[in-house]
Amino acid sequence: MTAVDVVVMAAGKGTRMKSRTPKVLHRLGGRPLIQHVMDTAQALQARRTIVITGHGADGVEAWLRESAAAAGRAAPDFVRQEPQLGTGHAVQQAVPVLPDDGIALILNGDVPLVRPQTLQALVDKCGGERLALLTVEMADPTGYGRIVREGDAVRAIVEHKDASAAQRGIREVYTGFMAVPAARLKRWLSLLKNDNAQGEYYLTDVVQLAAADGCEVVAASASEQVEVDGVNSPLQLAELERAFQLRQARALMEQGVRLADPARFDLRGTLRCGQDVAIDVNCVFEGDVTLGDDVRIGPNCVIANARIGSGVVLQAFTHIDGEQAGVEIGEGALVGPFARLRPGAKLGAEVHIGNFVEVKNSTMARGAKANHLAYLGDAEVGERVNYGAGSITANYDGANKHRTVIEADVHVGSNCVLVAPVRVARGGTVGAGSVVSKDTAPEALTVARAKQVTITGWTRPRKAPKK
Amino acid sequence: MTAVDVVVMAAGKGTRMKSRTPKVLHRLGGRPLIQHVMDTAQALQARRTIVITGHGADGVEAWLRESAAAAGRAAPDFVRQEPQLGTGHAVQQAVPVLPDDGIALILNGDVPLVRPQTLQALVDKCGGERLALLTVEMADPTGYGRIVREGDAVRAIVEHKDASAAQRGIREVYTGFMAVPAARLKRWLSLLKNDNAQGEYYLTDVVQLAAADGCEVVAASASEQVEVDGVNSPLQLAELERAFQLRQARALMEQGVRLADPARFDLRGTLRCGQDVAIDVNCVFEGDVTLGDDVRIGPNCVIANARIGSGVVLQAFTHIDGEQAGVEIGEGALVGPFARLRPGAKLGAEVHIGNFVEVKNSTMARGAKANHLAYLGDAEVGERVNYGAGSITANYDGANKHRTVIEADVHVGSNCVLVAPVRVARGGTVGAGSVVSKDTAPEALTVARAKQVTITGWTRPRKAPKK
Amino acid sequence: MTAVDVVVMAAGKGTRMKSRTPKVLHRLGGRPLIQHVMDTAQALQARRTIVITGHGADGVEAWLRESAAAAGRAAPDFVRQEPQLGTGHAVQQAVPVLPDDGIALILNGDVPLVRPQTLQALVDKCGGERLALLTVEMADPTGYGRIVREGDAVRAIVEHKDASAAQRGIREVYTGFMAVPAARLKRWLSLLKNDNAQGEYYLTDVVQLAAADGCEVVAASASEQVEVDGVNSPLQLAELERAFQLRQARALMEQGVRLADPARFDLRGTLRCGQDVAIDVNCVFEGDVTLGDDVRIGPNCVIANARIGSGVVLQAFTHIDGEQAGVEIGEGALVGPFARLRPGAKLGAEVHIGNFVEVKNSTMARGAKANHLAYLGDAEVGERVNYGAGSITANYDGANKHRTVIEADVHVGSNCVLVAPVRVARGGTVGAGSVVSKDTAPEALTVARAKQVTITGWTRPRKAPKK
Repeated sequence: MTAVDVVVMAAGKGTRMKSRTPKVLHRLGGRPLIQHVMDTAQALQARRTIVITGHGADGVEAWLRESAAAAGRAAPDFVRQEPQLGTGHAVQQAVPVLPDDGIALILNGDVPLVRPQTLQALVDKCGGERLALLTVEMADPTGYGRIVREGDAVRAIVEHKDASAAQRGIREVYTGFMAVPAARLKRWLSLLKNDNAQGEYYLTDVVQLAAADGCEVVAASASEQVEVDGVNSPLQLAELERAFQLRQARALMEQGVRLADPARFDLRGTLRCGQDVAIDVNCVFEGDVTLGDDVRIGPNCVIANARIGSGVVLQAFTHIDGEQAGVEIGEGALVGPFARLRPGAKLGAEVHIGNFVEVKNSTMARGAKANHLAYLGDAEVGERVNYGAGSITANYDGANKHRTVIEADVHVGSNCVLVAPVRVARGGTVGAGSVVSKDTAPEALTVARAKQVTITGWTRPRKAPKK
Repeated sequence: MTAVDVVVMAAGKGTRMKSRTPKVLHRLGGRPLIQHVMDTAQALQARRTIVITGHGADGVEAWLRESAAAAGRAAPDFVRQEPQLGTGHAVQQAVPVLPDDGIALILNGDVPLVRPQTLQALVDKCGGERLALLTVEMADPTGYGRIVREGDAVRAIVEHKDASAAQRGIREVYTGFMAVPAARLKRWLSLLKNDNAQGEYYLTDVVQLAAADGCEVVAASASEQVEVDGVNSPLQLAELERAFQLRQARALMEQGVRLADPARFDLRGTLRCGQDVAIDVNCVFEGDVTLGDDVRIGPNCVIANARIGSGVVLQAFTHIDGEQAGVEIGEGALVGPFARLRPGAKLGAEVHIGNFVEVKNSTMARGAKANHLAYLGDAEVGERVNYGAGSITANYDGANKHRTVIEADVHVGSNCVLVAPVRVARGGTVGAGSVVSKDTAPEALTVARAKQVTITGWTRPRKAPKK
Repeated sequence: MTAVDVVVMAAGKGTRMKSRTPKVLHRLGGRPLIQHVMDTAQALQARRTIVITGHGADGVEAWLRESAAAAGRAAPDFVRQEPQLGTGHAVQQAVPVLPDDGIALILNGDVPLVRPQTLQALVDKCGGERLALLTVEMADPTGYGRIVREGDAVRAIVEHKDASAAQRGIREVYTGFMAVPAARLKRWLSLLKNDNAQGEYYLTDVVQLAAADGCEVVAASASEQVEVDGVNSPLQLAELERAFQLRQARALMEQGVRLADPARFDLRGTLRCGQDVAIDVNCVFEGDVTLGDDVRIGPNCVIANARIGSGVVLQAFTHIDGEQAGVEIGEGALVGPFARLRPGAKLGAEVHIGNFVEVKNSTMARGAKANHLAYLGDAEVGERVNYGAGSITANYDGANKHRTVIEADVHVGSNCVLVAPVRVARGGTVGAGSVVSKDTAPEALTVARAKQVTITGWTRPRKAPKK
């Protein structure tokens, strides 16, 4: 099979975005637009990927280099288009680095949702011989060039203004994508003229050159318009974001995931789900998230970079972000509502984390509980520990972080402070309101509490009478 | 009037749900699909309800028995269809328990949204004499059997492939529901043949048998397609969930409830509203919830099993779940944002519960306040009590729950712990940071606090220089 | 140019709203319906605005007086329509206060979304001479009177029942709005008859009277139906709310604001945004909010009356309401998740406010941090202060609020209480669990803590065996 080399046009400014970020670096589903295109190229097993940059070139190239490095892939080739004299001119810049013996697949860096199978069909139509154009059926093609076909063969692309009444009835239009034998493409590119109103070199003109050259022109169709829609404004970005989210939601539902409302589901990364997972309304997932069997996620949860075991229940308003260190939740754990798990929170099976509780860089062994208004940071919590309401690990002395160890079967009372580094030994109890700064003895009661005193005859402040 | 006996087909596997839960037990609006059908049958005052089970029969039957018991109704009759040889075969299983003298109304356990009035119209069309088919107008009936009518009378159901051009213009199709005199149905069922490609017995075949029998065939129409849509996949379940939620939202709005966004409103249970209730975006209601006049609910609230008095304001991110014990909120109370009320929270009039406050199994009398970061569990709080920020009732000694009593006009300072069982007597004040474990005297100031000491010359830890 | 005098019909009851609030005072986008109309009139620089009140007149007039006063505008003129005998009768009430020399622009108080430019076009069509009708193209005009035009001129308004087949094809219908020379209007109003089934005086009848009078009748068109839709029920109110919100969302996106989901964005007030602002799903904005460049707002935030500096990040579930006093957040600050900023919270640059932290009426200087479960009320917090987890300012003594001053570089440990009025001097440290009620020395360590004691041989309570 002929090798495929992908050429990605990514030089455009995107003025309507009104942003200092280059257009192709705006994010959709958490990834820059161009990253979607790169990932699609990767799925096609393209031999080489050439990115044509221009506006914001440094930023675009830096992103793509880092992204490729992070994925363990080779960085793409970059060529710059400066000044920018049209789509044909853009592709001309790629000529020096484009091998002659492959199929050149021309993509747009701001068209993120084209599917690999659509592009594969386009490449197959090319077959190393033909000029294959990607087309799409539009509900309202007014203003677009119509594809006049005879079977697979494209007889012409007729501009709207030149179209007959019958031709205007055609709803298939050209999208700007093509797959073409690279050697022939190069020749046609060298023949492009800019004798038009804009003074630009148009890639579309290769269609006529191909026909003149006796090269067969064929078409492959995208399955839906959203595949070929580009992003030129925040409104278009938002529309494609919704289309992308619905696509992901449907894919998950086809796997058996129950979404309470596919229109209120956002995934910006990857979500792997076991069987019988149910996700309530308005949840947001980011990074890499794995959910085991029977996981139930309540409404309004925000979850990033976490591995969540089977049977876990996350109640409403749970916020998890594992960032680099990750968050892990063991089987059957119960978290939330209003719980926050931060990087390095590793909860064992059957752990309970309740409302207004924050856990950071801490392990909690099986059956440990922190049910109310508490902070656990840099702590190691043993099995069956009950960590009282309002209790805090003072893990930061103003300069360094220290660890707190709470051994198995300890009960920490309410409103305690454990001043790290400190160890509360196995089976111990810490009385309510205690500040514990020295290690405690096992099975003992530890208290640091003032005596309760009654002061009678004391009168509470009163509001001063208004003068 | 002829009695109506309902036959519910609920034996299907629902492979596309990809779930271990039997299809008809998947939930829509908080209730299993089949429960919707049972409730609709109940609304029709059906004499007998016969449920045909198969896949997951034990689970389905157990659910329906428990559900009927909880509602104080008789359980339906169950018959099993094993193996499953088609819809006609399914209904054949019901023959032994189906009385001869009634109208058999055949429903699907996975079609949850049919309205009682639609079924009543179908039953009326049957009138104990005719075979009445439920039909629906489809926007795109391609592939479905068309209903050829003459007025009320159905002349034929013509399969799509056999339909003339004129017949293909018909948008009325058959839905699978019917009402039919039971005695005649039984005879026709006995005549069904399975000489088709699938080797199955089709219930639809009774239409021809009825015609052959000289029985009049008539049709009644569902008002909208969603009434007759079945659930075969998580996507269809999500679509019907949205249709159901919009139906409920519209019904509430017709009663005068103001919903900020009907597309972001979820009710999984019952919601009774007084006059001038306003509900902001993205709220979820579960179980039984009652809202008095002028209740205002902020965005992103989750509310289950609660009675909320007139004039109450629930601010954003309020989470209430009364479960079995219920939650009650008195007139004019102010709750939230970020408040959580748990089972047995009973708030009097004008009570204020503020941010990051949890209340469980506690009564709060008129005018009591807990405005900031606090926990009240198993407490009895008197009128006008001010419960300070960060204060906690230590209600759990590691083995048992104890009660805290805070009498009227008490002020509890910040970051206190009340160690139950304990009573803070009328008019008393508890100094900030105190742990109170013994009952206090009325009108007295109670403190348990260490003396403030200054240590000069102390240097705070510094970050170790990097080596 | 001829002056424009606006007449707003606002006497209707709105029975279907099922509310004790007069219909025109129901809110859309945070403002009463009639306020939208008044603001539009204001945008037209109307000379005089006359509001015809009836049902709930006192409430409507009071609102409009207060609203005008708050905006520093003159209150409109009010006339009452009692009893209510039709739209013509309504406008008749305005005759005594309507100047003869202007253009009368007749609006509906329950039609909130008409655009100023649409009304300006209508006024221009009138030109002080013609009767100009506002029309709209309806997708389905069944039942509405069709506009039979010849160019700009309106030849007739033909009722649906009287329309020919060709006329029924017309989708342009009359909306009830008109601009008309006031003197002529007054004469036509005096000729209205109520010899119809309802016994009412219809404003529409002036069209015939105008034609009979030789007055040219012309039409201007609204750009979309939502401009002329009225509110008669909570459902219609919700529909227009969504249309209004989408209109606002699109306007913001055109300015370059990135909205993750325009269908889940609510703005009830004004939102000014710098460049490269990104707003995640399901956020609600109220009052006056200003966002600097590069502000990022996470999902599910509720933000009212706040000025937020460049580069600020608000994480998920942040709740801000500045009410009258406002909230200010300095450049590069990081707030949330689950943070609440209340009136008078003024955060300097680079301040961090973390989860379950409430700040009210407090200033925090550059670089100060309160990252976990804390309350700051009536406090003045210096630069680089670290305010520990669980710490509270006890600002309320049961009668009065007092201020807490925490000078620069102070570290407050965990679960402290600062009992106001109190000052923690520069560079000081407060040990964990301390209650500080006296001013502290600079650079010193202040503790108020009981000694840690070990009690061995103590056995934790055990659950009583079940009898």
